[in-house]
Amino acid sequence: MIKVGIVGGTGYTGVELLRILAVHPEAEVVCITSRSEAGMPVADMYPNLRGHVDLAFSEPDAGVLAGCDLVFFATPHGVAMRMVPELMAAGVRVVDLSADFRLKDLDTWADWYGMAHESAEWAEKAVYGLPEVARAAIRDAQLVANPGCYPTAVQLGFLPLLEQGLVNPARLIADAKSGASGAGRQGKIGMLHGEIGESFKAYGASGHRHLPEIRQGLSAAAGKGVGVTFVPHLVPMIRGIEATLYAELVDVADFDRLQSLYEARYENEPFVDVMPFGCHPETRSVRGANHCRMALHRQENSNIVIVSSVIDNLVKGAAGQAVQNMNIMFGLDERLGLSAPALLP
Amino acid sequence: MIKVGIVGGTGYTGVELLRILAVHPEAEVVCITSRSEAGMPVADMYPNLRGHVDLAFSEPDAGVLAGCDLVFFATPHGVAMRMVPELMAAGVRVVDLSADFRLKDLDTWADWYGMAHESAEWAEKAVYGLPEVARAAIRDAQLVANPGCYPTAVQLGFLPLLEQGLVNPARLIADAKSGASGAGRQGKIGMLHGEIGESFKAYGASGHRHLPEIRQGLSAAAGKGVGVTFVPHLVPMIRGIEATLYAELVDVADFDRLQSLYEARYENEPFVDVMPFGCHPETRSVRGANHCRMALHRQENSNIVIVSSVIDNLVKGAAGQAVQNMNIMFGLDERLGLSAPALLP
Amino acid sequence: MIKVGIVGGTGYTGVELLRILAVHPEAEVVCITSRSEAGMPVADMYPNLRGHVDLAFSEPDAGVLAGCDLVFFATPHGVAMRMVPELMAAGVRVVDLSADFRLKDLDTWADWYGMAHESAEWAEKAVYGLPEVARAAIRDAQLVANPGCYPTAVQLGFLPLLEQGLVNPARLIADAKSGASGAGRQGKIGMLHGEIGESFKAYGASGHRHLPEIRQGLSAAAGKGVGVTFVPHLVPMIRGIEATLYAELVDVADFDRLQSLYEARYENEPFVDVMPFGCHPETRSVRGANHCRMALHRQENSNIVIVSSVIDNLVKGAAGQAVQNMNIMFGLDERLGLSAPALLP
Amino acid sequence: MIKVGIVGGTGYTGVELLRILAVHPEAEVVCITSRSEAGMPVADMYPNLRGHVDLAFSEPDAGVLAGCDLVFFATPHGVAMRMVPELMAAGVRVVDLSADFRLKDLDTWADWYGMAHESAEWAEKAVYGLPEVARAAIRDAQLVANPGCYPTAVQLGFLPLLEQGLVNPARLIADAKSGASGAGRQGKIGMLHGEIGESFKAYGASGHRHLPEIRQGLSAAAGKGVGVTFVPHLVPMIRGIEATLYAELVDVADFDRLQSLYEARYENEPFVDVMPFGCHPETRSVRGANHCRMALHRQENSNIVIVSSVIDNLVKGAAGQAVQNMNIMFGLDERLGLSAPALLP
Repeated sequence: MIKVGIVGGTGYTGVELLRILAVHPEAEVVCITSRSEAGMPVADMYPNLRGHVDLAFSEPDAGVLAGCDLVFFATPHGVAMRMVPELMAAGVRVVDLSADFRLKDLDTWADWYGMAHESAEWAEKAVYGLPEVARAAIRDAQLVANPGCYPTAVQLGFLPLLEQGLVNPARLIADAKSGASGAGRQGKIGMLHGEIGESFKAYGASGHRHLPEIRQGLSAAAGKGVGVTFVPHLVPMIRGIEATLYAELVDVADFDRLQSLYEARYENEPFVDVMPFGCHPETRSVRGANHCRMALHRQENSNIVIVSSVIDNLVKGAAGQAVQNMNIMFGLDERLGLSAPALLP
Repeated sequence: MIKVGIVGGTGYTGVELLRILAVHPEAEVVCITSRSEAGMPVADMYPNLRGHVDLAFSEPDAGVLAGCDLVFFATPHGVAMRMVPELMAAGVRVVDLSADFRLKDLDTWADWYGMAHESAEWAEKAVYGLPEVARAAIRDAQLVANPGCYPTAVQLGFLPLLEQGLVNPARLIADAKSGASGAGRQGKIGMLHGEIGESFKAYGASGHRHLPEIRQGLSAAAGKGVGVTFVPHLVPMIRGIEATLYAELVDVADFDRLQSLYEARYENEPFVDVMPFGCHPETRSVRGANHCRMALHRQENSNIVIVSSVIDNLVKGAAGQAVQNMNIMFGLDERLGLSAPALLP
Repeated sequence: MIKVGIVGGTGYTGVELLRILAVHPEAEVVCITSRSEAGMPVADMYPNLRGHVDLAFSEPDAGVLAGCDLVFFATPHGVAMRMVPELMAAGVRVVDLSADFRLKDLDTWADWYGMAHESAEWAEKAVYGLPEVARAAIRDAQLVANPGCYPTAVQLGFLPLLEQGLVNPARLIADAKSGASGAGRQGKIGMLHGEIGESFKAYGASGHRHLPEIRQGLSAAAGKGVGVTFVPHLVPMIRGIEATLYAELVDVADFDRLQSLYEARYENEPFVDVMPFGCHPETRSVRGANHCRMALHRQENSNIVIVSSVIDNLVKGAAGQAVQNMNIMFGLDERLGLSAPALLP
Repeated sequence: MIKVGIVGGTGYTGVELLRILAVHPEAEVVCITSRSEAGMPVADMYPNLRGHVDLAFSEPDAGVLAGCDLVFFATPHGVAMRMVPELMAAGVRVVDLSADFRLKDLDTWADWYGMAHESAEWAEKAVYGLPEVARAAIRDAQLVANPGCYPTAVQLGFLPLLEQGLVNPARLIADAKSGASGAGRQGKIGMLHGEIGESFKAYGASGHRHLPEIRQGLSAAAGKGVGVTFVPHLVPMIRGIEATLYAELVDVADFDRLQSLYEARYENEPFVDVMPFGCHPETRSVRGANHCRMALHRQENSNIVIVSSVIDNLVKGAAGQAVQNMNIMFGLDERLGLSAPALLP
C-alpha cells in the first residue's frame, strides 16, 4: 500500500482525490492537512464521504508528511514551492496539483502568478505530468507537476497536429469552456448560484494563467514557438471542460488522414478516446471519469481543422490525472482506481 | 460470475444498471434488449460507456434470457408481467424495476396503471425488494419487485416511527421532490430543459402511482392501514430525491429517544445513514451512490416529527437497489459494486 | 413624480427595485445608498441596468433621504429600525423590505433576530404590507413593513381557509421551496454554484425566521393562535418560491365549495390568480412578475386540503410587493409598473 | 393601433412575441394561429400569459390574416414562403422570423434547408432585417426577413471590423454558444433536461444552417466574399447567446483605435451597447431584453482581435428584433415595447 498524504484538502481537488482514493486498492490516505479546518472530520465538510473516510483535517506536520510515500499538493499556488524542497530531501515523492512547478521559465511564472519563484532547482527538475507526452519521465520522477485543467484538454486536442507539423503553429485558437468547480471553493460573489446559475460569459479573455502553460506545452510538441489565442468561458454547470480548437492545415489534402492519425496517436492511451469523425463529445460523457474524449470536424471548403475535446476538470483535469501519475510513478496499472464509467445522466 | 440479462435497456434505469455492473466483480451482462434500438451499440447511445461496454442492443430472445442467471426488467409497466412467468418456469431469477409486481392488491394496481394485471400468481409470490425490511425473503426469492424511487425514500424515513407505533398513522404527510431523470428518457415537451430547467412545481398532487405503493409499505410497517398524503415535485436538477416527512408524535416525550431509535434501527444497514439530529441531507451527498441519508428535526413546542430523507432516484431508487437485491439473492456481500462514494461536487 | 430613495441597494432586492422602477411612469429614484460601494455606478455592478440607470451608489445622507417622498429599505435587519424614526419625524413615508417592522411581538423579534428592537413605537405603528389583507391601512400608512417572501406565498395560500374557519388551525403544514436568490448576494461558500447548482435540500427545518411571521399572519386570519410547521428548502434555480400547504378540513363536505371560495376571495385582487382545481402552478409562470398563482388539490378519500402557491421571491416576495404598496400609498393604480407578463421560457 | 397577426404561435418565438406585444402601446394582436392547437386558449399553454392574453389559437384563416396590418411568421422553414405571396398581394406587411427569406442565393437555401424555394420573387424583394445595417430599407419594406439568432450576435460583433477593412476577411472564426430555447419547443430526447441540464457540447460543428446567413451578411459588410468558420455550442441554460469572435488585424497599430471605432459605429443604436475594453458581457445582462452587448479584447503581442457579443436569442435574436422591425416599418419610436431592463438575477 502506498502511504499517501494530501496537503490542502478542503478544496474541490482535495475532496476529489479522497473520492478516487477511497476505492483505490493500492493507496491509503494517512493524512490530509488544512490549517483553517484542523480537527474537523473530512466527512463533516463533504457528506458524500460519510462512511468512506474517517480522517479529520490536521495541521501540516513535517514529520508525518516525511513518512508518506507520496504527497499530493492541492493548495493555492505559492505553497508547494516552499514545502516541496524539504520533502524532496526526505525522499518523499510529490505530485503537485497547483501551478508551482508547471512552467520552466520562472520569469514568466513570476509575471503570471505575481510572486517570485522560490525553488528554481525543483522547478527545473519537475516533470510536467501529462502521461500522454511524458510517461517514461513520470515513472522516474520524484516531483511531478500535474497539468492544469484547460491545458490538459487543449494540449491533448492539438498534439497530433503539432507533432506532425501539419498546421500553421502561429495561428492556433483555443476557445474553452468550464464548469464552475474550476474556480474552486471560495466564497466569491461572482461564483454564487444566483450570479452564474443561468448565464454564460467569457472571462480572462485578455490573458489567463493557463495561457503560458498551454504555449509551453504546444511549443514543445511543435518543436518551435507557437502562437496561441486562448479564451476561457464559464458554463452554468459544475463539472466539465470543452475546448473547441481551430488550426489551419498547411496542406488541405492532409484532411483525409487526420482521423487515422489521431487514432494512431492515442491508440495505446487508456484515457484518451478519439471518437468517430464528426461526433460531438459531451462533457457529461466524462463526468467523474478520467477520460478525455475528442472528435474532429471540417467545414465545407475550409482549411481549418476543428477539434472538440472534453474532460472532467476535476478528474483528468486535476485529481484523476494526479492518481494516474501516481500509478505510473509506482509501477502500477495506470488505470487502477480510475476504471468506473462516467456518471450519465 | 452471474450471467445477467437486461430487458429494456434504453432508459435511464438501463444505462445506470450498465454503469454499476461495469465495475461489479461478480456479474457479467450478457444481453441487453431493446426492440426499437436492436443492433445499435449501447455506447453509441450512452457515450459514457465507450470503452466499458461492448454490447449492442438486441431483440428480446427467450432462449438467451432463459440462459441467464438473473434478468433485470427496466421496462415500462405492463411488460414484465407478460414475460416473467416464462422466465420463472425456466428457473431464471428476476428483479423487476418496473411497477408490475409491487402491489399486492391487483384491483388497486389495475386502477392506477389502467390495465388488468396478467400474472396474479407471480404478483402474489413476488417479494417487495426493500432490503431494510425484507432481506431474508429477498435472499430466497425467485422474483423481486424492486421498489419505486419515491417509495424508497419515504418508507425508509417513516419506518422506525411506524414500526414502534410512535405516531398517529392516520395523518402522515410526505412532501417529496425529484430530479428530472425520474421521468425517464422520452421526448416529452414537458421535460425539455427549456421548460423545466429553471422552474419548480408540484405534479401529481391529486394522486400519483407511488401513493398506493407507499401506503402498502407503511401499512405493513404499522400493522394497520395508514392515511398518507403524498405530493411529488419536480426539481430542476437531474438526479436526486428529497422527501420531507411529517408525522404527529402520540407522546411528545418520545422526542428524546427518536435519534437513538433511528440509529439503532439502521445500525447494520450498509446503505442507510442516520445523520446527527438537525442536519440537512443534500441530494448531492448520494449522487451516483446507493445510500439513503436522513435526519430528524423538531420545531419549538411542536409534536410534529420532521424527517428529511435523500436518495439518488436512479441508484437506491432504482438500479443500485436492484443490484443490492441481486447481491442478496446470490449470497454476495451486499455492497459489491456499490462501494464508490457519491460524486460531489 | 414620486421622489424615491433606496437605502441599501447592492443586494438582489435593491437591483430588483431599480429594474421595476426604471419603467414606472410615476416614480423617480433620486438616490440609492451603499456604504461599501459609494461612488460606484449602479450599472457597473448590475450590467442589465446599463442605459437605464445613471445613478451611482452614495453614502446615506439624512438630508437627501429626508427630501424623498418615499424611501425603500433594502437592508439587512437592524438597519431600518435605527434610521426610520428620523425619517418618520421628517414626514417621509417608508416601505421597509427588511424584517425590522414585521413582528408585533418584540420579544419574539428579539429572539429570532438576536438583538433588541430599538423602535417599539414604530414597530407598533407599522402596517404589515400584505395588500390582500390590509389595503386600506396601507393607503394611510407612513411606515409599511413589507412581508417576507415565504410568508407572502404561505399566507396567501392559507388565508381563505382560515378566514372561513374551515380547517383545523392547530395542524397547518407549509413545505416551501425557494430559489437561491432568496439568500441574497453575499459571498457564502454554501451558496456557490459548485455547491448547490445540482442539489436539493431542506434548511432551517428546526426553525426559520419566517416562522413567527407566518404564525402572526395566519393567527390574525384565523382569529386565534394557529399551529404551523414550516420547512423551507433550497432549489437549484435563481428565482421562485413554491409552497405546498396542507390543512385538515373540519367538514369534508366543504371540499365542493373550496374552489369558488378561493375564486371569490381573490376576485378583485390584481396579483392573485386562482387557477382551476387540480392545476400545478410553476414558478416560471411568475418569473419577474408580481403575481401569486395558486391551485387546490385533494387526494382520494382524504380530508386534507392541498394548496400549491407560487411567487417570484424577488417580486411579489419583495420588490414588486413593495412597489405595489407604494402605488397604494400614493393613490395610484396598484398595477403601475407591474404589468409586464412573466418571463417564460 | 397596428392590427397584428401571428402565424405559428405555439413555439418559444410565438410566446415571446405575445409577451412583448402584451405591453406594446401601439400594437394589438388580433389572431394567433396553430393548426395543431386550434381552440386552445394561449394562456393554457403559457401560464405566464394568464390575465394578459385572452386569445385562443385559431386555424390560419386567409381572410383574417389579410385584414391585419402586419403578420409575424413564427413557423418552421417552408411555411412562410408558401403563404407570404398571397399576403403580399393583399397589401399586408410581413416580418418573417423563419429562415425562408434570409438568403438571397436560393440554391444555397435549397442546399441547407433540403427543399426548393417556392417564392423567388419575394426572396429577392425581402429586406434582411438587421436594423443596424438596413434601417432605411426596413422602413419601406413590405416583407422583412428577421435575422437568425446566431447571425445577429455574430454580425453585430464583426461589422465594424469588416466595414473598415481592418481584418483579414478570409480567416474569421465565430465560436458561439446558445441556451436550449434556441432549439425550439419540440419533444426531442436530445433536448430533455435529463440529457443536457448539466453538460456542454458543440453541435453542428461540420456545418450549421446559420453559416451561409452569416457569410452572406459579413460578405456584404466586407464588400467581398469572406471565409468564416462557425461552431455553435449548447449551454445548459434557457436563454442567451454568447459569440466569441476572432479576426486577424491587418495592421496591429489599429488596435489603439478599435474601441472608439466600435463606439462610434453604434453610437446611435438604441440596442447595441459597446462596453469598455476588456469587459466580459454576460448573457444574463440581456435576458428578456432587446440589447446586444459586446466588448473587445486583445492578448499580449497578438494581432488577433477578440470580440465577445451577447444577446437573448429569443429577443434580439428573434421576437424583440421582429418588434423592433415592426416599429421601424410603422414609423414608431424604435424602442416602443422594448424598453424594460433585462431580468437580473
